[in-house]
Amino acid sequence: MAAQVKKGSTRAIARAITHIENGTRLADKLLHDLYEPLNTAHTVGITGPPGAGKSTLVDKMIAIWRSREKKVGVLAVDPSSPFTGGALLGDRIRMQRHAVDSSVFIRSMGSRGHLGGLAGSTRDVSQVLLSAGFDPVLLETVGVGQGEVEVAGVADVTILVLVPGLGDEVQTMKAGIMEIGDIIVLNKADKPGIDQLESAVKANLDLMPSGEKKPPVLRCIADSGKGIEHLVNSIEKLFSELLENAESHRCRAEMALKRVSYEKGKILAGIFIEYLFGKKKAVDDIVEGLTSPYEIGEKMITLAEKMLEKTNDQEN
Amino acid sequence: MAAQVKKGSTRAIARAITHIENGTRLADKLLHDLYEPLNTAHTVGITGPPGAGKSTLVDKMIAIWRSREKKVGVLAVDPSSPFTGGALLGDRIRMQRHAVDSSVFIRSMGSRGHLGGLAGSTRDVSQVLLSAGFDPVLLETVGVGQGEVEVAGVADVTILVLVPGLGDEVQTMKAGIMEIGDIIVLNKADKPGIDQLESAVKANLDLMPSGEKKPPVLRCIADSGKGIEHLVNSIEKLFSELLENAESHRCRAEMALKRVSYEKGKILAGIFIEYLFGKKKAVDDIVEGLTSPYEIGEKMITLAEKMLEKTNDQEN
Repeated sequence: MAAQVKKGSTRAIARAITHIENGTRLADKLLHDLYEPLNTAHTVGITGPPGAGKSTLVDKMIAIWRSREKKVGVLAVDPSSPFTGGALLGDRIRMQRHAVDSSVFIRSMGSRGHLGGLAGSTRDVSQVLLSAGFDPVLLETVGVGQGEVEVAGVADVTILVLVPGLGDEVQTMKAGIMEIGDIIVLNKADKPGIDQLESAVKANLDLMPSGEKKPPVLRCIADSGKGIEHLVNSIEKLFSELLENAESHRCRAEMALKRVSYEKGKILAGIFIEYLFGKKKAVDDIVEGLTSPYEIGEKMITLAEKMLEKTNDQEN
Repeated sequence: MAAQVKKGSTRAIARAITHIENGTRLADKLLHDLYEPLNTAHTVGITGPPGAGKSTLVDKMIAIWRSREKKVGVLAVDPSSPFTGGALLGDRIRMQRHAVDSSVFIRSMGSRGHLGGLAGSTRDVSQVLLSAGFDPVLLETVGVGQGEVEVAGVADVTILVLVPGLGDEVQTMKAGIMEIGDIIVLNKADKPGIDQLESAVKANLDLMPSGEKKPPVLRCIADSGKGIEHLVNSIEKLFSELLENAESHRCRAEMALKRVSYEKGKILAGIFIEYLFGKKKAVDDIVEGLTSPYEIGEKMITLAEKMLEKTNDQEN
């Protein structure tokens, strides 16, 4: 299947994604086969509050990259729908004109089911697309919460989209949110309030620690396409800087390892609890006040350390 | 320290929270000592988009519970500020009239630093407050992303706050978000668009699977206090239902165990990687293409299973 994915087979890609979403053991094998530590393709996170016009922006960016002969992947991420699986019908309709173009792959993702959470599955699925020759892969998220920050952490370059009139709370109270954007886009720049928005954003950026690089602030009007070409060029400039950075592959590998540790850690904990108690017994003991979840946590760590010590001793 | 917390000492509570936020080993010990599987105090999650008036709502709810001689805890959670630590200055000012009341404990929380993420630290800190006699403990979150869904998962009862005019995307595209609310509050009910909002919400709820209990939809005006008493009574009715449910303590214990597994799982994974490679070596090997994060994940699980089997055999 990995070979088919690398050739860009849409069917193989779709099947690979299904395996990842279902968390099958084949998925791990496949991801291992696809893993290319020196892949130069990039991911772009697009985040911002609902109503900021992200889907329209993505639609226009796709058109520009297509005119440059690039294959473009889009993962529309909806962290707020863990229950329904995330239909995002509106977004898909907005991008539909690209749906018949086989060099554009669009997929909506909810957080349902995936062990590693949304950030985990997004990274894994985007790796499939990167291996299949899509470059860039766009990760569009809805909302401005923790999930989005995590997804942004998965992307090589993150665009934060803001618009005038979304309430002052977004602009003034959440200094932290500014810091996730490598580029800040002020969309709907023809709307009233755009100057105040730009001032508020810049005032916020002035609060950043002096050593840190301030993200460029770009105005655009996604509806008419104004400013999008400039945005795409700014993104590609960041891609080039990443490629020149000798540490970037190392950083990627570290992040991937961290994320896998996360996912497998939960499985490891399950194995240890099963060993220590059997699952039902552990909960019984907690309810009866014989132990607490915190004590069980301590026991897991102690047991792991002891076992590894022993194994070490036996090997020496 | 646990004894002092149970007596309600503000200083002991503050110190306990600091230990939790710094993830010290003493924190685990303390949480174990404080853990009461049959505690009947409750947590209330208050979530919804920025600008929905959650802080004002919380302020008014505090006043009603205080008039009923309850001690009230408030954790204002800002998942979008992992970097700055989350000041939430505006919110604190809004609730400041309660700041001199020793029966009200207010604390802002960012997600910085805590191993288990925001949901983890929120649960742990709320447990400290519950043990200290605060009942209810309100968990106010900003935003509508994954982080909030997780925090909602931590609360016994969750209130979703919506307001007219936040853009149709919030109302029509995110069916999933409705499902996290045990009660849906339509705030700013004196604003234009309230009828359309109520229709949209109810249409959304009609899409829920027929077996599931539909949350009540309540109108209120937090600014004037209208409808808040009814809301508080509705929340207390849900508390009573929870207490009558024989399985509720079991559910709580299961959730707590799951969360601890989560946190300790990451530590377990670190121990295993250290054993398998030494951390630096693992990343080197990945970059050089000798292994992949996915293969390392597989190796961790295989090693754990093998070791536990061996330990089992030796014991038999």
